Amino acid sequence: MRITREDVVSQLLAGASDRPVESADVYAPANIALCKYWGKRCSELNLPVTGSLSLSLGSYGSHLRMSRMTEATTDRVTHNGVALSADTAFVRTLTAYLDLFRAGAYFNIETRNTIPTAAGFASSASGFAAAVRGLDTLMGWALSPQALSSLARLGSGSACRSVYDGLVEWDVGSSEDGMDSFATPLRDQWPDLRIGLLVLTDKTKPIGSRQAMQHTVDTSPLYRAWPETVASDLATIKAAITERSFERLGQAVEGNAMAMHSTMFAARPSVIYWTPETVATITRVRQLRDEGLMVYCTMDAGPNVKLLFLHASQEAIEAAFPDVVVTNAYNGDV
Amino acid sequence: MRITREDVVSQLLAGASDRPVESADVYAPANIALCKYWGKRCSELNLPVTGSLSLSLGSYGSHLRMSRMTEATTDRVTHNGVALSADTAFVRTLTAYLDLFRAGAYFNIETRNTIPTAAGFASSASGFAAAVRGLDTLMGWALSPQALSSLARLGSGSACRSVYDGLVEWDVGSSEDGMDSFATPLRDQWPDLRIGLLVLTDKTKPIGSRQAMQHTVDTSPLYRAWPETVASDLATIKAAITERSFERLGQAVEGNAMAMHSTMFAARPSVIYWTPETVATITRVRQLRDEGLMVYCTMDAGPNVKLLFLHASQEAIEAAFPDVVVTNAYNGDV
Repeated sequence: MRITREDVVSQLLAGASDRPVESADVYAPANIALCKYWGKRCSELNLPVTGSLSLSLGSYGSHLRMSRMTEATTDRVTHNGVALSADTAFVRTLTAYLDLFRAGAYFNIETRNTIPTAAGFASSASGFAAAVRGLDTLMGWALSPQALSSLARLGSGSACRSVYDGLVEWDVGSSEDGMDSFATPLRDQWPDLRIGLLVLTDKTKPIGSRQAMQHTVDTSPLYRAWPETVASDLATIKAAITERSFERLGQAVEGNAMAMHSTMFAARPSVIYWTPETVATITRVRQLRDEGLMVYCTMDAGPNVKLLFLHASQEAIEAAFPDVVVTNAYNGDV
Repeated sequence: MRITREDVVSQLLAGASDRPVESADVYAPANIALCKYWGKRCSELNLPVTGSLSLSLGSYGSHLRMSRMTEATTDRVTHNGVALSADTAFVRTLTAYLDLFRAGAYFNIETRNTIPTAAGFASSASGFAAAVRGLDTLMGWALSPQALSSLARLGSGSACRSVYDGLVEWDVGSSEDGMDSFATPLRDQWPDLRIGLLVLTDKTKPIGSRQAMQHTVDTSPLYRAWPETVASDLATIKAAITERSFERLGQAVEGNAMAMHSTMFAARPSVIYWTPETVATITRVRQLRDEGLMVYCTMDAGPNVKLLFLHASQEAIEAAFPDVVVTNAYNGDV
């Protein structure tokens, strides 16, 4: 018997409180995977093929204000101050997600992203994490972080990591209902880590990441080697964090991102998120490293490049990339 | 007991004639693999992990003039009119190869490439194929094509395909001495096929293809999926040639090249031959295809892009890429 999102929501809300309030005003940070989530074993529940590990982006993420509307017949969604039509992909996805929780009510939702949408900056992660936080506050559920993470996963896989700050691991889990597939913060945190965002383009991506992921799983002959790649990288990354070995961390992080894009390039037909600027930036990062600057890069399902470095290198990074936006997972405005 | 190049040369020359002439003046075309050779199971004998299939480049390749010198103590190598020093990589590799055949003699060799060297245009393939043809003529061996192909392989793997014109398949073979790993022309040829060369850069590559290949085999977590990828692509490409299905051919050719580069990108550290121009060109090819022009691309271990198309599309290709050099495997000057 196929397990549905509704089944899982029932389980997760079984012991929840019920103390609704008028409105909720919440925030969730975006996160950048250091070891990528790429491929689902179950698309209904967003259960992953592998584990993954991310660093949150502090004050870069999604603010969300939420209230119930009486006598409304649809949700109302405003994004960055603009009312969105019900037929946009974003509203359709969000509305379908809210259907799991509405119990007859419709919602007025205002979101504001402090990070560009749909250019590979994981805005759906912070968006769905914020939606779950909003629901939890509005309904007065007082759920555990683990339950919040699981609920967020049902909206968007990587959202399950955005309910925390800092270094966060999403366990792959093995149960069919996914109740053991949620994120937790790593015991070892590393406050000196920084992620720099380079916005090479804020154009919408040629293909959404959900679709690119599924197409890669379905058609890329190299994807079969991805799960073992992640198993190895995840172990290396966690060991490097514990050992505070930045070089080892950076090599595994960059290698893992390159491997993910490689699985996409090899899809039939290819998924190519890289632009000429992406290649120029990757090449520049390697040059800087050859010159002794400890900086590594990672890329998600989009053309933009993110830099991984330590606080001590921040000035040098800003000198090399004047437009870089430096984020700090441990100094958010949450 | 490890089999050496010397052992294999002895076997191949066992029944050879011995009617030396004063000098030889030969030519071999370059070739572009439609299904790539990427990875060796034996580096002493250049035995491949998989089979491969190529199209020759007609009049684009290597001219070579060769004679023996009396009283010389080294080979003398002139390339494109320039005398090369004995410590260049090219001369070292060539000299080591000639050691297999010299029997005390040194050679005066003049080569002239009609294709840029060392920018991913497979000049070592035509160079070693020409060297073997030169030796065969100079020594009067009158070897079979199969023996010439095997000898060329000992110099550079892909050279074994450059002893023929047209569509050529290199059999992977299975014997330890590699005597069953040589190239033969396909029974089905396709005279309307064209390859267009786009010289995006003629700068020497950051890393040679031999080294990149070995590094990929040794470190890329995605390489383990390469042999099955080739097995599938090779079957598709041969079927598409037989069926004269250009779309099926092009999709497999482009997919195979993308998969090869993907294995490199995923190496640790990455091997990235692509430049911003490479990405821009790949993107342009896809746009043209979306507009209805049947053109596919392939890339070797270098930044340049090669276009695969049919004779009927040549004018449209030349209009879209004014600098393209169109090659015709079936109209060489050999």
